[in-house]
Amino acid sequence: MNEKFGKQTIKFDKTPYIISRSSVVGFKEGEGPLKDSFDMVVSDDKMGQTSWDLAEGAFQKTAVEIALKKINVKNSDIEYILSGDLQNQCAATHYGLRETNIPFLGLYGACSTMVEGLSVGSMIVAAGYAKKVVALTSSHFCSAEKQYRNPLEYGGQRTPTAQWTATASGAVVLSDIGTGAKITHVTTGKIVDKGICDVSNMGAAMAPAALDTICAHFKDTGLTPDDYDLILTGDLGITGSEILCDLIKKEGYDIEKKHNDCGKMLYNIDAQDVHAGGSGCGCCASVLCGHILNEMEKGTYKNILVAATGALMNPLTVLQGESIPTISHAVAITI
Amino acid sequence: MNEKFGKQTIKFDKTPYIISRSSVVGFKEGEGPLKDSFDMVVSDDKMGQTSWDLAEGAFQKTAVEIALKKINVKNSDIEYILSGDLQNQCAATHYGLRETNIPFLGLYGACSTMVEGLSVGSMIVAAGYAKKVVALTSSHFCSAEKQYRNPLEYGGQRTPTAQWTATASGAVVLSDIGTGAKITHVTTGKIVDKGICDVSNMGAAMAPAALDTICAHFKDTGLTPDDYDLILTGDLGITGSEILCDLIKKEGYDIEKKHNDCGKMLYNIDAQDVHAGGSGCGCCASVLCGHILNEMEKGTYKNILVAATGALMNPLTVLQGESIPTISHAVAITI
Repeated sequence: MNEKFGKQTIKFDKTPYIISRSSVVGFKEGEGPLKDSFDMVVSDDKMGQTSWDLAEGAFQKTAVEIALKKINVKNSDIEYILSGDLQNQCAATHYGLRETNIPFLGLYGACSTMVEGLSVGSMIVAAGYAKKVVALTSSHFCSAEKQYRNPLEYGGQRTPTAQWTATASGAVVLSDIGTGAKITHVTTGKIVDKGICDVSNMGAAMAPAALDTICAHFKDTGLTPDDYDLILTGDLGITGSEILCDLIKKEGYDIEKKHNDCGKMLYNIDAQDVHAGGSGCGCCASVLCGHILNEMEKGTYKNILVAATGALMNPLTVLQGESIPTISHAVAITI
Repeated sequence: MNEKFGKQTIKFDKTPYIISRSSVVGFKEGEGPLKDSFDMVVSDDKMGQTSWDLAEGAFQKTAVEIALKKINVKNSDIEYILSGDLQNQCAATHYGLRETNIPFLGLYGACSTMVEGLSVGSMIVAAGYAKKVVALTSSHFCSAEKQYRNPLEYGGQRTPTAQWTATASGAVVLSDIGTGAKITHVTTGKIVDKGICDVSNMGAAMAPAALDTICAHFKDTGLTPDDYDLILTGDLGITGSEILCDLIKKEGYDIEKKHNDCGKMLYNIDAQDVHAGGSGCGCCASVLCGHILNEMEKGTYKNILVAATGALMNPLTVLQGESIPTISHAVAITI
């Protein structure tokens, strides 16, 4: 029987397996340090589409195709597909997946969406509602930049704490039967808002959400940082990662040696001019579905905790003077 | 054991109960034919907030408070809260619920969100992951109008097929133990896009999604329209409802005598100048959580199928010439 621990964590008795995964990234991401870990690096970030918005959808479509092709599974074998993205009304997802013909659950978790999808997807598989589900997400630098910040042509200056939205998608196939990497725990986050209003410092806004969820995971399960080989956050970047490691020390957990962040890993930060690191739903998705799960298979990591973080404001609410609500969802993966 | 029927439908063995519900609506909705069915009709659609965007969040906050107060349950007794809305990045939800301190799963299903929340919430409760969850959603005429169409001050003319976004929120509390109305089946929809590009005719765009999901429900379960006292769609309005009843006849199901639509019920259509009827996430939410569940308790209906529909485009994709992807999620409720 699947067990509920404490308030926020489920421990699965019948653990869902990650039986396939894919990562598709843009040109810049393909020049970064993780370039060899991705299934596809595209040379045309527009993916042959007429807009950046549709291009992002094409990244999702391609990610699903690759993940299913690897295990020779057809769309009709997938019982649910879970996805969302950063575009208004999650348009990338809806246009990218509209031809899949798979029962669809739309999620909105901003940059936490990869782990929200893994969480709900795992709940569905572990409960026996489905044998195979796909969870995925995407982001695109160009669609995000014009929607959240400035038109690309404006060439706006970026602050040192700003992060670079990844052009990337990552997808996993979860199954009730399998070998290898599997989801053991899901810890669902609460909305956390500590009053940060600076949209060029998402790391600072989101670090308290990661803190809240990671601490809840430890408290709910009795596990400690020692039980994990890696505690991976989604895209706190350099600034947010420092804040998290500081704050969590005050809660009695030292994670500094175990912690890394997808936003710190995706780019060569100085050489690629990404300031505080990568961000966007596709950052955590592509790094997890590429590099991290590769390393788990190689034996580098056995037990990891992945806490993706998302900022839940929109550009308008911030202009209205509101602070940034944030969230972090976590899953524990073991191999 | 919960059972999976066909591709899209789950039949719950241990059915989740609707142990509480609430509906909070705006001034105009409070002048409609269902006015006596709502828990609260507000006189100030701005809810004392500084923007329409935050006002919509306040509708959600109030709906949660009322639903929990009715059964004397505290926020800390709720294990998950599931919500989403139509604002960019679901801002109403995040600002409205940021102080709840309840583990949160963000959904995006446009006007299908109430049923998407009921679906995922029921899956969570029926699987034993939680004893009590809240599912809710909202919409607000003023926040939707400025985001999707024109500034209110512009006074734009509406076409005959246009629908009126409801200012409303509805919430349910689902529990593993209870009496009365319970969720027996969940049928999860696929994205359907039949090429409609007219955002002033959402009924026509969404009817094929309702068709797809309702037919899937009948095929998966072997049930027929005769098994239901009411087949309720979310907000197809007058135009979409006619299209659905026509199209489904061709599939061999006559639902005309059983069908009604929340968008046709919420307003006095002619007198309140709402053209083809109501729409918005809050339309299905408030009509279901108010009038419909009241009528079930009174004995008017014993078995109902609720298929909420959502249009998954955004204003930009439509201006780019894209058609409107849509979805419909269904739950069967019995008392």
